[in-house]
Amino acid sequence: MCKVNIYITLKEAVLDPQGKVISQSLKDLEYDGVRDVRTGKYLQVELADRENAEQKIEDMCNRLLANPVIEDYTYTIEEVV
Amino acid sequence: MCKVNIYITLKEAVLDPQGKVISQSLKDLEYDGVRDVRTGKYLQVELADRENAEQKIEDMCNRLLANPVIEDYTYTIEEVV
Repeated sequence: MCKVNIYITLKEAVLDPQGKVISQSLKDLEYDGVRDVRTGKYLQVELADRENAEQKIEDMCNRLLANPVIEDYTYTIEEVV
Repeated sequence: MCKVNIYITLKEAVLDPQGKVISQSLKDLEYDGVRDVRTGKYLQVELADRENAEQKIEDMCNRLLANPVIEDYTYTIEEVV
């Protein structure tokens, strides 16, 4: 079994209005040091099998989990014994 | 300046219907090895100042970014020169 952590973020060039709102809200709460906030998604996927996990995960991201046109993704895999 | 990555997840005991849907969709796409999917949020926050960053971030999470009743959060801080 293995656990995969997937981090999906908007590409640099894509506007992130949700991040802008969070950033402004933090400033309204007097956190003046906040320069920028970008939002993304975090998925924890449990796979039965470590074999070919990289390929499967990339495939899943491209087909369903992320939108490759506007989003980037990275992932880490930890094997669980 | 420092960059903070915040990972917000639902607590173990909290149902995650969105994760269940993703998990089922992946199975429908013939990814049979998928055992479970949990969804979360991923925030990238840029702070002007490294000083007291831990305390500020925890404060932000508790007040605005996460819902401490149903969500857990972790974070990593990287200093940028």
